[in-house]
Amino acid sequence: MDLAFQTIEQLAPLLKKKKVSPVELLDAVLARIEALNPKLNAYITVCAAAAREQAKRAEREIARGRYRGPLHGIPISLKDNIATKGIRTTAGSKILADNTPREDATVAKRLRRAGAVLVGKTNLHEFAYGVTTENPHYGSTRNPWDTSRIPGGSSGGSAAALAAGMCYASVGTDTGGSIRIPAALCGLVGFKPTYGRVSACGTIPLSPTLDHVGPLARTVTDAAIVLRTITGRDPCDTTTLALPPLTLPENLGKLPKRLRLGLPRDYFFDGLDEEVRRAILKAAKHFEQWGAEIIEVSLPSLADSVETSNHIALAEATHYHQRQGWWPPRAADYGEDVRKRLKMGADVRAVDYIRAFEMQRRIRAEFECAFALVDALLVPVTPVPAPQISQKMLSLGGEEETVRAALLRLCRPANLAGLPAVSVPCGFTSPGLPLGLQLIGPACGEEIVLRLALAYEQAHGWRKQHPVL
Amino acid sequence: MDLAFQTIEQLAPLLKKKKVSPVELLDAVLARIEALNPKLNAYITVCAAAAREQAKRAEREIARGRYRGPLHGIPISLKDNIATKGIRTTAGSKILADNTPREDATVAKRLRRAGAVLVGKTNLHEFAYGVTTENPHYGSTRNPWDTSRIPGGSSGGSAAALAAGMCYASVGTDTGGSIRIPAALCGLVGFKPTYGRVSACGTIPLSPTLDHVGPLARTVTDAAIVLRTITGRDPCDTTTLALPPLTLPENLGKLPKRLRLGLPRDYFFDGLDEEVRRAILKAAKHFEQWGAEIIEVSLPSLADSVETSNHIALAEATHYHQRQGWWPPRAADYGEDVRKRLKMGADVRAVDYIRAFEMQRRIRAEFECAFALVDALLVPVTPVPAPQISQKMLSLGGEEETVRAALLRLCRPANLAGLPAVSVPCGFTSPGLPLGLQLIGPACGEEIVLRLALAYEQAHGWRKQHPVL
Repeated sequence: MDLAFQTIEQLAPLLKKKKVSPVELLDAVLARIEALNPKLNAYITVCAAAAREQAKRAEREIARGRYRGPLHGIPISLKDNIATKGIRTTAGSKILADNTPREDATVAKRLRRAGAVLVGKTNLHEFAYGVTTENPHYGSTRNPWDTSRIPGGSSGGSAAALAAGMCYASVGTDTGGSIRIPAALCGLVGFKPTYGRVSACGTIPLSPTLDHVGPLARTVTDAAIVLRTITGRDPCDTTTLALPPLTLPENLGKLPKRLRLGLPRDYFFDGLDEEVRRAILKAAKHFEQWGAEIIEVSLPSLADSVETSNHIALAEATHYHQRQGWWPPRAADYGEDVRKRLKMGADVRAVDYIRAFEMQRRIRAEFECAFALVDALLVPVTPVPAPQISQKMLSLGGEEETVRAALLRLCRPANLAGLPAVSVPCGFTSPGLPLGLQLIGPACGEEIVLRLALAYEQAHGWRKQHPVL
Repeated sequence: MDLAFQTIEQLAPLLKKKKVSPVELLDAVLARIEALNPKLNAYITVCAAAAREQAKRAEREIARGRYRGPLHGIPISLKDNIATKGIRTTAGSKILADNTPREDATVAKRLRRAGAVLVGKTNLHEFAYGVTTENPHYGSTRNPWDTSRIPGGSSGGSAAALAAGMCYASVGTDTGGSIRIPAALCGLVGFKPTYGRVSACGTIPLSPTLDHVGPLARTVTDAAIVLRTITGRDPCDTTTLALPPLTLPENLGKLPKRLRLGLPRDYFFDGLDEEVRRAILKAAKHFEQWGAEIIEVSLPSLADSVETSNHIALAEATHYHQRQGWWPPRAADYGEDVRKRLKMGADVRAVDYIRAFEMQRRIRAEFECAFALVDALLVPVTPVPAPQISQKMLSLGGEEETVRAALLRLCRPANLAGLPAVSVPCGFTSPGLPLGLQLIGPACGEEIVLRLALAYEQAHGWRKQHPVL
């Protein structure tokens, strides 16, 4: 059996029954990392020795009948802006190149407790402040489907590692799409939970108002397994909510009888690559054939979502770097694009920042009203498949747009509104680049979003395809 | 009996027993307004006819044995930034000169329900954005103790009306001291409650993070009567808290057996007029003689309280005026000082605004730690007695300071920390100008603050003195 592209769902019973050993699994992963990481640059740090200790321990525990659950013995990775005790956490930056945290982030702690084996820390856009994962300090991560292309970002290393069989799940952060964009561009499942569902304690912040922590995985069920493990109220992150625990992946089986899906034509369907548009509308047709009612909904305030997101994210990012004493004293140590944005952030006016929160409330209210009519929204993740490395601009319907702006614009609304949103593979372009379908649910509606994604995934064979490297 | 300077506490039983009639009381007040308001400019609008209707109704109700409580039939005033149904509410501005609200502010509604008779709307610093009540549109309010001087502000009209016997209580707003400052400079009791205790719904905002609504009255008991009437959770103001109701003024009688009062030497005792310093330290001595332990406490972050308050208030004020569409289009319609500050507010940077909230948390934490050691803090309200009208600068200990900065600096900390704070008369300067003692309590500690103020008030004769006009 080739272990590399098995899912956690497939592996967990084998591990439990001792038909596969955690050490064997880890060795397979480490072998692929050795072979492929030099090309893909997915990992900044591989912690082979510590991982082997953890795998051995998992093996012993399972042998003694102390099976912890579906992540026990599974090699996973964490985006390198998530603190790991004793393992350096660079945030993809020069400034934190030697940063070795004394404590795990809450999500890292919870994954350890579930028996997961941390194989390494994945590359990212510097400080998660960008969407290409072209990292000036640790090298650009490459997309396993076409190594001349970006994997998307900022959690690009997590996505490339997963797509290339170098781990079985990862946890990333998503401030404007940083989980969903690389998931879409690499043919994976990426899930951004409801704001307050997963603790951000111990992650290096970008914009606390918009930051979310969530899983990347190869399948919806695998994403649900990781999500369930990392959710929950955390006294260390006061934004986390005390919510009933998610019963995942067990209750993902059935779609509701009367299913209404919203197609928000304004904003989400402007300026799309034709192949993307067709793929999304085809997915909508599939849901319709399964009995869903497709309803056009309107979210007019999204016209302001880019400006609103920018005012919040720019100001909060610069404030964090100022508070750390890095900006401006260490301006020269940032990559050019991040330096430019930190500079822009210092100039945002407070009145615009305050107004952005008013717009955020309005956007939330429009989403809430949409969810009075529909169970979830069905939209693209990105308007284009993976761009080339070094590409700065792209043209859609005759309009020039930066790669950054294009990749972010369809993801930002769910960050502003704090809503659960999944990216699930929905086909390939003609040159064979993966595409992602985004399903956005109401606040705390992770279950319906994942159920829809699972139903769609199970009806299609996309997830069985893997990049040839 | 001269009704003008009676207290609510004295009048209420007389009204209840029909020994004084609400109409008679109103007539006495209206006569004084007619005689004194042209000189003092305390009222922008006097609603004599509507007030007479209310007084007659109160008289009928009381005659029928339907006595509503201690405010029933009492003529009160409201600062003119508090919306009153059918009565114009100017906020002291030209822009709102013809603004007639269709609804009462929550506090106005509650006072009406308690049977209070609204005699008029008091003058204020334009949009409550200043501390002198020198109003370019409605004229400067004058201090009844010395009409060449300011009453303080921004609730200066409320204070002048009370001090001159033109109403029995008033409600004002306090963003940086606007209740306590005029109370101190006019020899009255002014109370700023805990943030979230009194609804601001229907008041014209200055800086929602720092805005508080509260009573001005001639005695602590009268202030407590009004406070109890206006407090409580209000769905229309989401910052209001669901707290157990205050049992005021009934439980004000006794001081706790072991009383510890904090004297924060840093910040609050810098740059004081000598007579002010002596009066405050003398008040501390009084408490000590009654058995209180005086403890020096430290609040080092208050050194940043002016900058912190400014970043929040400037930005939030300009944002509000922008959102209303007044700024900048109607820049010419503002008084010079307010226009200057609105301009400054547009330039505050978002990073400084965000940092201000961090400082606010730190200042709150320092107060919380202080309140682990003491029951309340004892400090001055203002470093000087009432300045002259038109005076811009003053000199304290050789340092030049604007009148505005001097009057605000000792009041702002309680706004930043959202703590209950009272101004209670504590004597006069040699030329006969009133001075105020400020008692600051822990969050939701309105009772202890008022109890201390009452004990102090009862031991002294200050409140029996009135200005001669």
